[in-house]
Amino acid sequence: MPDAFSFRLLAADGASRRGEIATPHGRVATPAFLPVGTQATVKGLAPEAVRASGADIVLGNTYHLMLRPGAERIAALGGLHRFMHWPHAILTDSGGFQVMSLSELRKVEDKGVTFRSHLDGAMVELSPERAIEIQNLLGTDIAMQLDECLKLPAAPSELERAMHLSLAWAARSKRAFEHVPPGRALFGIVQGGDDARLRIASARALTDIGFHGYAIGGLAVGEPQEVMLATINEVVPVLPADRPRYLMGVGTPEDLIEAVARGIDMFDCVLPTRNGRHGLAFTRFGPINLKNARHADDPRPLDAAGACPAARDYSRAYLHHLVKANEMLGAILLTTANLAYYQELMAGLRAAIAAGKLADFRAATSEGWARGDIPPL
Amino acid sequence: MPDAFSFRLLAADGASRRGEIATPHGRVATPAFLPVGTQATVKGLAPEAVRASGADIVLGNTYHLMLRPGAERIAALGGLHRFMHWPHAILTDSGGFQVMSLSELRKVEDKGVTFRSHLDGAMVELSPERAIEIQNLLGTDIAMQLDECLKLPAAPSELERAMHLSLAWAARSKRAFEHVPPGRALFGIVQGGDDARLRIASARALTDIGFHGYAIGGLAVGEPQEVMLATINEVVPVLPADRPRYLMGVGTPEDLIEAVARGIDMFDCVLPTRNGRHGLAFTRFGPINLKNARHADDPRPLDAAGACPAARDYSRAYLHHLVKANEMLGAILLTTANLAYYQELMAGLRAAIAAGKLADFRAATSEGWARGDIPPL
Repeated sequence: MPDAFSFRLLAADGASRRGEIATPHGRVATPAFLPVGTQATVKGLAPEAVRASGADIVLGNTYHLMLRPGAERIAALGGLHRFMHWPHAILTDSGGFQVMSLSELRKVEDKGVTFRSHLDGAMVELSPERAIEIQNLLGTDIAMQLDECLKLPAAPSELERAMHLSLAWAARSKRAFEHVPPGRALFGIVQGGDDARLRIASARALTDIGFHGYAIGGLAVGEPQEVMLATINEVVPVLPADRPRYLMGVGTPEDLIEAVARGIDMFDCVLPTRNGRHGLAFTRFGPINLKNARHADDPRPLDAAGACPAARDYSRAYLHHLVKANEMLGAILLTTANLAYYQELMAGLRAAIAAGKLADFRAATSEGWARGDIPPL
Repeated sequence: MPDAFSFRLLAADGASRRGEIATPHGRVATPAFLPVGTQATVKGLAPEAVRASGADIVLGNTYHLMLRPGAERIAALGGLHRFMHWPHAILTDSGGFQVMSLSELRKVEDKGVTFRSHLDGAMVELSPERAIEIQNLLGTDIAMQLDECLKLPAAPSELERAMHLSLAWAARSKRAFEHVPPGRALFGIVQGGDDARLRIASARALTDIGFHGYAIGGLAVGEPQEVMLATINEVVPVLPADRPRYLMGVGTPEDLIEAVARGIDMFDCVLPTRNGRHGLAFTRFGPINLKNARHADDPRPLDAAGACPAARDYSRAYLHHLVKANEMLGAILLTTANLAYYQELMAGLRAAIAAGKLADFRAATSEGWARGDIPPL
């Protein structure tokens, strides 16, 4: 009998929390980072490699999967876990964010959003109910409500309209979720842009509706980091302490630490995978751009003392060569190293919170980044 | 103390041979298939994955490596084995074939070939002596002489000129190889196109010079399969039985079986890797084009009874999706499955020869291919 969704708090240090989410597909240690598996694959890695990086859970994109290969098709093939050969937990977004960012033509109405597919130009409708139906067909462990996510800066009246629309969609999503098999979870999404009043109203109203967890959406969309952190500071106290808090689409290693220190439990972001494909490595000593010619003769690996083979077994000269030669293995190794670094960072945060030493961990990590990459001898 | 190059014959069945090559970087069971690692990487696979496919040895391309990142640079970084994190055997070609196929501007003279780099347009010289020097810098276990490889069909006078030039270069290569550390091997290359008289003269002259092994070059360059097999039939009896025979750039699974049956011990070819990147899988039941829409709903893996996880753990529907979505993982899984199939085929050939049952193996394998891919239920 698989576990039903639940969340346990194991330790706290200030606002930060060490916890564990149970799902029908295994447990997730929090704070957790979710690698992004947009098209039913974390780009460049077999699922065993994603697991080996330390991930308990990945994110799938409803928008992409509904368009190709299609939710009904994945359901007929046994669901997303079987389809992508990932037996562990999956969270899917609702598709709302990609409708806003990828579709050139779209119409937002109370009933839902109609948009032109970026693949074949077909007009597609997505309502709160259809978003839940799709995620149910995919068999996701954690579903997200459909919301309207605006880019910042946005006019106050627009932020207010989108926040209220997202709330109405949240209530409809919860009703639609009653038809989903038990054990799975539905998260509401706090909207309101950079307006504290709207954010607090959104968080309160979502809490009144009641969800298994709460996400903060509409951040990492162009605003400065201090706006993001201020929003977290405003929203977190309003959310129930016994439910996980998920900061969507964030972020840099520094963003993760700062958000965890403010009480966030979950993150997803394309940075480690996308930057890995573009020659950038995240390390304990800050980012390293392997495209840079200064690496061409450097025999040192990214991190000689690290646990990740991709960061430990290959010279920077070799990684530079692969990136310059546009070889797939360059993207593969850097994606692997970046995901391993992100997961190592999360494991470090979890251990630090459990030991009541988050401040020390934060200082030591910042010191490593500040030390920077050592130039070759 | 690493092994010096040697070749032992372990069994024979008709003209086919089961053998073992010792090299300074490990042993190679023959008949052997060499995955192609053009730019110091077998495209899409970490070296551990190449090893897991069953490969004892890979091929590196001198032409590519001399232009980027450069042979002197690789030498300074500890040689090609360390550079690409492949501690097993490596064979490098001489660069001659790529000079002919990739460089738009080139001038062939007795002293060597001058060509325009396809990367930066620089004029580069490659002589028999420089080809050996480069391969020595790379630290290859098996070096190849520089030769001139013509496309077929070619005029008889051209074939004769190129064959004699290649012979002169063979003698100079052998002299240059005297400066290479002991234990490594140098192979001569039989040329002569589709002219039996030239091929036999080339093989005899090379044998007189004396090499650790002998390659047949200038095939799989556009000629029908029967021309290739006829050439093998002419050349093999002239070559010394106690040295390995290497058919360069070949081929399809059927080519491999037919050539092994005629006494060939080694092969390299881009087919399993290149076709894997283009959506084509080689299987026990023939090739499967995963681009085809008929796979979109097919829950069956490529080979449910196979040993390769890439062929066993993922549905054809998923592979089709990855290929259509242009996801790296599609190329990675199909490359992995194809190399595993090629190595499984070679292992089958080796076992069959050892058991004196090559004819049975050949018939059973052909039967599997003829059975074809079973359509979905």
